[in-house]
Amino acid sequence: MAYGYNGKILRVNLPNKEISTEELDDNFYRRYMGGRGFIGYYLLKELKPKIDPLGPDNKLIFATGVITGGRIGGSGRNSVGAKSPLTNGYGEAEAGGFWGPELKRTGYDGIIFEGKSEKPVYLWIGSEGPELRDASHLWGKTTLETESAIREELSDKLIKTALIGPAGEKLVRFACILNDITHSYGRTGMGAVMGSKNLKGVAVRGKRPPVVADSAKIKEITRWLNENYSRGFQDTGTAGGVMGLNESGGLPTRNFRDPSFEGAEAISGQTMRDTILIGRDTCYGCPIRCKRVVKVDEPYKVDPAYGGPEYETVASLGSNCGIDNLAAIAKGNEICAAYSLDTIGTGTTIGFAMECFENGILTKKDTDGIELRFGNADAMVKIVEMIAKREGIGDVLAEGCMRAAEKIGKGASEFAMHVKGQEFPMHEPRYKLGMGMGYAISPTGADHMQSIHDGGSGKHPGGLLRLGVLEGLPANDLSPGKVRMFVYQQHWNSFNNCAGLCVFLPYSYNQRAEIIQAITGWDVTTWELMKVGERGTTMARAFNMRAGFTRADDKFPKRMHEAFTSGPIAGVAVGEDRLEEAISVYYDMMGWDRETGVPTRGRLQELDIEWVADLL
Amino acid sequence: MAYGYNGKILRVNLPNKEISTEELDDNFYRRYMGGRGFIGYYLLKELKPKIDPLGPDNKLIFATGVITGGRIGGSGRNSVGAKSPLTNGYGEAEAGGFWGPELKRTGYDGIIFEGKSEKPVYLWIGSEGPELRDASHLWGKTTLETESAIREELSDKLIKTALIGPAGEKLVRFACILNDITHSYGRTGMGAVMGSKNLKGVAVRGKRPPVVADSAKIKEITRWLNENYSRGFQDTGTAGGVMGLNESGGLPTRNFRDPSFEGAEAISGQTMRDTILIGRDTCYGCPIRCKRVVKVDEPYKVDPAYGGPEYETVASLGSNCGIDNLAAIAKGNEICAAYSLDTIGTGTTIGFAMECFENGILTKKDTDGIELRFGNADAMVKIVEMIAKREGIGDVLAEGCMRAAEKIGKGASEFAMHVKGQEFPMHEPRYKLGMGMGYAISPTGADHMQSIHDGGSGKHPGGLLRLGVLEGLPANDLSPGKVRMFVYQQHWNSFNNCAGLCVFLPYSYNQRAEIIQAITGWDVTTWELMKVGERGTTMARAFNMRAGFTRADDKFPKRMHEAFTSGPIAGVAVGEDRLEEAISVYYDMMGWDRETGVPTRGRLQELDIEWVADLL
Repeated sequence: MAYGYNGKILRVNLPNKEISTEELDDNFYRRYMGGRGFIGYYLLKELKPKIDPLGPDNKLIFATGVITGGRIGGSGRNSVGAKSPLTNGYGEAEAGGFWGPELKRTGYDGIIFEGKSEKPVYLWIGSEGPELRDASHLWGKTTLETESAIREELSDKLIKTALIGPAGEKLVRFACILNDITHSYGRTGMGAVMGSKNLKGVAVRGKRPPVVADSAKIKEITRWLNENYSRGFQDTGTAGGVMGLNESGGLPTRNFRDPSFEGAEAISGQTMRDTILIGRDTCYGCPIRCKRVVKVDEPYKVDPAYGGPEYETVASLGSNCGIDNLAAIAKGNEICAAYSLDTIGTGTTIGFAMECFENGILTKKDTDGIELRFGNADAMVKIVEMIAKREGIGDVLAEGCMRAAEKIGKGASEFAMHVKGQEFPMHEPRYKLGMGMGYAISPTGADHMQSIHDGGSGKHPGGLLRLGVLEGLPANDLSPGKVRMFVYQQHWNSFNNCAGLCVFLPYSYNQRAEIIQAITGWDVTTWELMKVGERGTTMARAFNMRAGFTRADDKFPKRMHEAFTSGPIAGVAVGEDRLEEAISVYYDMMGWDRETGVPTRGRLQELDIEWVADLL
Repeated sequence: MAYGYNGKILRVNLPNKEISTEELDDNFYRRYMGGRGFIGYYLLKELKPKIDPLGPDNKLIFATGVITGGRIGGSGRNSVGAKSPLTNGYGEAEAGGFWGPELKRTGYDGIIFEGKSEKPVYLWIGSEGPELRDASHLWGKTTLETESAIREELSDKLIKTALIGPAGEKLVRFACILNDITHSYGRTGMGAVMGSKNLKGVAVRGKRPPVVADSAKIKEITRWLNENYSRGFQDTGTAGGVMGLNESGGLPTRNFRDPSFEGAEAISGQTMRDTILIGRDTCYGCPIRCKRVVKVDEPYKVDPAYGGPEYETVASLGSNCGIDNLAAIAKGNEICAAYSLDTIGTGTTIGFAMECFENGILTKKDTDGIELRFGNADAMVKIVEMIAKREGIGDVLAEGCMRAAEKIGKGASEFAMHVKGQEFPMHEPRYKLGMGMGYAISPTGADHMQSIHDGGSGKHPGGLLRLGVLEGLPANDLSPGKVRMFVYQQHWNSFNNCAGLCVFLPYSYNQRAEIIQAITGWDVTTWELMKVGERGTTMARAFNMRAGFTRADDKFPKRMHEAFTSGPIAGVAVGEDRLEEAISVYYDMMGWDRETGVPTRGRLQELDIEWVADLL
């Protein structure tokens, strides 16, 4: 018997309404571990290189990992992937919540959706097995309305859903998918792919309790976790670091234009706690409760059912738009969750539009009279809604900042903060140069989840010491030592995204290996797990190479090469030459051709995926 | 306070009789871990590329690892290194015993000997500190005589020694160094380097008890070890596998000429146990007792003080010379230990000479009348002694089989089983192709300790499963999958040779990480340890590149490309093309240039030894 997985995935052909089950062998699970690993595998194997991400040839893949649902803190994570309508390359997003564990309890580890349904449908997996059901009556409804309707029509209040709202239906390129209403598969436009398939959602209710190989060990680690998780994180959530970031120069402000934000304190996690917070939510099995629940009254009335804003949302709809109004940010967050918009893509695109407006590239004529200036909270909330509904200027912005800038013209591209078409998340690349390089080289476009870590603090390398990195490097370093830190961290994050284990839990590297062993029974080493992660990143790179990407796509917007002249990180920026050199070093360390970035056959052989070389 | 090391090494300038102490920082220990890591570091940093290995510019380095002396089974290991007089490249040999732990108890982690002493000396490190003492009266004496004399003149019977006998003094190129009389730093001719320096030995007696970071954990692992080590290994020693090897085609026979040995049973570990064995010896802290103690009466009278033959000796002086007389083998072993000859180099060179004799290339005129045929036990014993004393044909053979063949001429080179000048150890490369490739690419020449493992048994990859190798491969496979297995195993063996931890202990990968942590207090992962090992191998490669080696040196003798026509491995051999392809894959996986095998700057940067790139 296998622990940690069911050995089965569903394949759902939407036009034919055919649902089939595929069995996978144990080595498939151990080699790819799920999540990113599965997605990379299937996208590479099954998608033709030049397909339209919003056309019927794209496939949408839900994938749990071997840890998902494993009865331990951090095991709520799971992934969705497809070719991205933002980047035209490898697309993937992860989320926590309860939906992934519930999917696994149905007896399936993942779902591959193929083609486009003739009419709106949703997939229901209950005790009778999988079934495609009509969703015509749900089309146009918000996520909360949809979930309620599904629970009602199936007479089961415990059903878990992964859904799109109207933004996904309308193919907003940075539309997301939400599970349990508040957990967002945010990046790379997976909600638009779902919308393009006329697929409203997936509802699941499972009966198979999770069975782990070593429940005593799971209990032991759980006891450790309960004593060792960060109370501060629980107290103030992911936005607890706003003030520190602002003081060091790491809080993106007014579309990455300004060095710091005078209104930071008003939008901090501490302020949120002391004002609008009414509860703390969590994911499956997790004691931390880093998720926020807020309640706001008029004029920005916010329904607590939509949770509350996380750090990325606070910064993207807040400081990045020059807005210090937490109630307005919470409202923007609610609209994003109701309509299924990625809050990062939304905030960065609005910041872009505001800077265009400030520079006269957009005018009130373009915005239906909205004074789209930095700091205008009403305007931000209104534009979020217009994007979600593709109304007016919202229809342009719904294409994402790169495409919107091309449409607007007049030099607007200068203000589009994206890589490969995906909008910047809320980490200032000039503050953490390692993470900045990560934006440039990530297969998913600008992505802050490639490498949480940067260089350690001062002379100490932080947790990376445990991978043999002996010395810390300052945030403004981009030497080969920093690239190495990035590579190791990227492998590790990628492994966690394969296995379905949250990177925010305080488990050490060896503890994560113990968790894999306790759940699956596999006697793994961190070496094996790092290689799992590297395999995932390399498959994603290979997907992009096939899709036509070249080294020229691994780059920053120009602004990132220009240092601030004042503020905490004045004078720090990476010249193009220095970035190119770091990218060469990165390719080399990854076993990719130093010039072209194409994975070498030798490294693919070492990663036990030589089949990928035959596709390149 | 640091655990696992003293933070100090001795530097001994022999011509000036200057002894100095150098302090090393903690990161130096964690980055290189000792043993091979230290040797690679110092040889690269301090030796000019083209020096004569037997000239005064060579340096001889004794290096413990952080585990050496760590109060746990397997912690007796430590290393000696120098430029090799056999290969003119990177030289290193490891041994167990009690000497290494005792050296560490003196307060030093290693010793670097520089230059050549005017007169014979030995280094004594006792409670008064280090002191160079005259050894003129010891020159020409056997190891046992020398150890007794030193103990007597210093009035301490517990002194531990690392010594050469007359073979080292006479610069026999495959001379070894022996510690505690029976533990041989066997390979790459380190005894000749010691002799070239007029250095008879190093005697140590320490007072600093080993302090470990977590003695409770050490006790826990020790309890586990006592319940889990192989009783079979204790029972029959390393020669316990002779019969199995012979049946599968892995027992080198008559200079690798014949497919199996009809006299295998007579020289097996089982026969040894039932005949000449009188005791089992061990290394510091180890319950296994795999070392043999034998007693033999006339005509091959053997002193039990010299222990007994291990597998490599049984095969090299036995089957590889066609000899089924265990008493003669034990006698040859005794002479090697008394005179400080590597039994592997000795046996392979004698096997070579026997095949020359059988083919008329050598005649009785060359051998002082000795009938030097396969199977002639008397002749073998006599020739061992002649090599040790450089008498007659022994003086030619003392140069090692490669140089002897060049001197003999008449096509003798065809029979010289060596790589880079170092003689084959006792593993048939046509039986285990992975290990065979290891002979070709090892920086030390033909070396069986690069990769103990081969392809697992049947479909199961054996212990390598824990490094993420999911499928076994047959012994006669040399696909990229096999190369990967080799690379992973080489990293791991190399790490063990850095840390000073015996590979024969049954500890798993994660347990070895736990041992490192328990002894040093470092919270390490297997990832870090694998990279320590890779660092060691890569520094050795870089040393060879600087010394003038090229890809052309990574090759087999012709015979290895010719399959047996009968026997268990009939038809199995690697063609030159196939070997070259495997070598390219190996280079690629190592991050070395696929064509030239030169380590790339990117990989050196990742290994945190970019300084090496500046030497290439």
